[in-house]
Amino acid sequence: MERIEHRACFGGWQDVYRHRSEALRCDMNVGVYLPPQAAHGPCPALYWLSGLTCTEQNFITKAGAQRYAAEHGLILVAPDTSPRGDDVADAEGYDLGKGAGFYVNATQAPWAERYRMYDYIVDELPAWIEANFPATGARAISGHSMGGHGALTIALRNPGRYRSVSAFSPIVAPTQVPWGEKAFAAYLGDDREAWKQYDAVELVGSAKEKLPLLVDQGDADEFLETQLRPRLLEAACEAAGHPLTLRMQPGYDHSYYFISSFIGEHIAWHAAAMK
Amino acid sequence: MERIEHRACFGGWQDVYRHRSEALRCDMNVGVYLPPQAAHGPCPALYWLSGLTCTEQNFITKAGAQRYAAEHGLILVAPDTSPRGDDVADAEGYDLGKGAGFYVNATQAPWAERYRMYDYIVDELPAWIEANFPATGARAISGHSMGGHGALTIALRNPGRYRSVSAFSPIVAPTQVPWGEKAFAAYLGDDREAWKQYDAVELVGSAKEKLPLLVDQGDADEFLETQLRPRLLEAACEAAGHPLTLRMQPGYDHSYYFISSFIGEHIAWHAAAMK
Repeated sequence: MERIEHRACFGGWQDVYRHRSEALRCDMNVGVYLPPQAAHGPCPALYWLSGLTCTEQNFITKAGAQRYAAEHGLILVAPDTSPRGDDVADAEGYDLGKGAGFYVNATQAPWAERYRMYDYIVDELPAWIEANFPATGARAISGHSMGGHGALTIALRNPGRYRSVSAFSPIVAPTQVPWGEKAFAAYLGDDREAWKQYDAVELVGSAKEKLPLLVDQGDADEFLETQLRPRLLEAACEAAGHPLTLRMQPGYDHSYYFISSFIGEHIAWHAAAMK
Repeated sequence: MERIEHRACFGGWQDVYRHRSEALRCDMNVGVYLPPQAAHGPCPALYWLSGLTCTEQNFITKAGAQRYAAEHGLILVAPDTSPRGDDVADAEGYDLGKGAGFYVNATQAPWAERYRMYDYIVDELPAWIEANFPATGARAISGHSMGGHGALTIALRNPGRYRSVSAFSPIVAPTQVPWGEKAFAAYLGDDREAWKQYDAVELVGSAKEKLPLLVDQGDADEFLETQLRPRLLEAACEAAGHPLTLRMQPGYDHSYYFISSFIGEHIAWHAAAMK
């Protein structure tokens, strides 16, 4: 592993590391914010999964999250959104291939070889964090859009692994919307049954742990009705008796201006859960 | 004028406008953050001048300033750093021409025709803001690097126009450092006497108003000794009896991670001065 950025920020350090991923068979960049408290002892960690087109940079430069992480003593871990490198399969368009890993383990050629973001996020990344940084092992997970989908599905499928989960403008039902249908057909093939393991609305009924879901959604989001459809999650949670706080935020869109406005409340929620 | 971005942020609106500048003879983008309080009555305004290579986007996407502006009820005005357009003179390199206006009125060809950022910032921009937005007319000014130079020199030359001034990592003595020497030779010609009107260290001795200067400077800034040299400002202020608070911030560099860490304190300072 190599530290490629190291910047003082709110009394702690916003770093970027490049490390070798065995799951993805490539080098990956990861943003790691170490709050001031990490100089004195281990801290809990919040994993942030970004959306389509993003790298590890978007969240660390635009969300303004470091202030709140410093206040609550949380490590922030911001991975990239797909495998990277000249020899990694890619496609035309922003919504498939690089920058669009969708947090699944692909089973179809040419993706299956390296597009294993589910394994990377669930197993390899936290193991690497906990081996190399002053992390307590208490974990929370959040994300935006495609990354909100990732956070919800990963938390629902892995009881006991996360103390808390939240999402901004998540793709709650990828099997029912164009972004998800395109990506899942490519990564997972034509069998729609295989898609359901990566769909929060499908998973919530069978979740073994009733981890409360916190979801913020802007009501002026340009993708609200076509790609995000949070009411499907609301209905599924109601049917399953799964606790959900869905906050429709008036006037807000899909951008990091929205995330920055509410990330402080999410970090406070995760910090309380990891206390 | 045309509104080209409109995004809810911390209960207010982060907008970007394109308007015609007579001083620069081109269309200019300006970031305008309207805090929630601006929906109910006029608010004071903080003008932010960005550094080399920046547009109106850097500050509004990376500084995390909207949170504090919403808290204190300040309008944030973030202009671009030079005239723009295909027919605007430019040069090789990031430190002259577009993105490098240095907040001067150029006198030399080919720059003199449009590189009049001093007039734009001092007169045209605040007149446009106060004619089109709910601004009280109370003004503060701040900036980063080249923009810190702009904020200090403009405040020092215009007594009574600003209630307060601050800077992050400013170029305090452009007549004595490579960035300033290159830009001033091009924009202002060979007569170094003419350069002094745009040099904070030169101006502080003759300032007609003892407006206190607040300067934050990271001690790990890669440009500290070659381009910024804050101790020259400290010495000039001491000689002139001009109030200066120079804070050397340990470990911080020249990036927006540094700005984001202390912009809250600057905004509180400006808000108090404009009450």
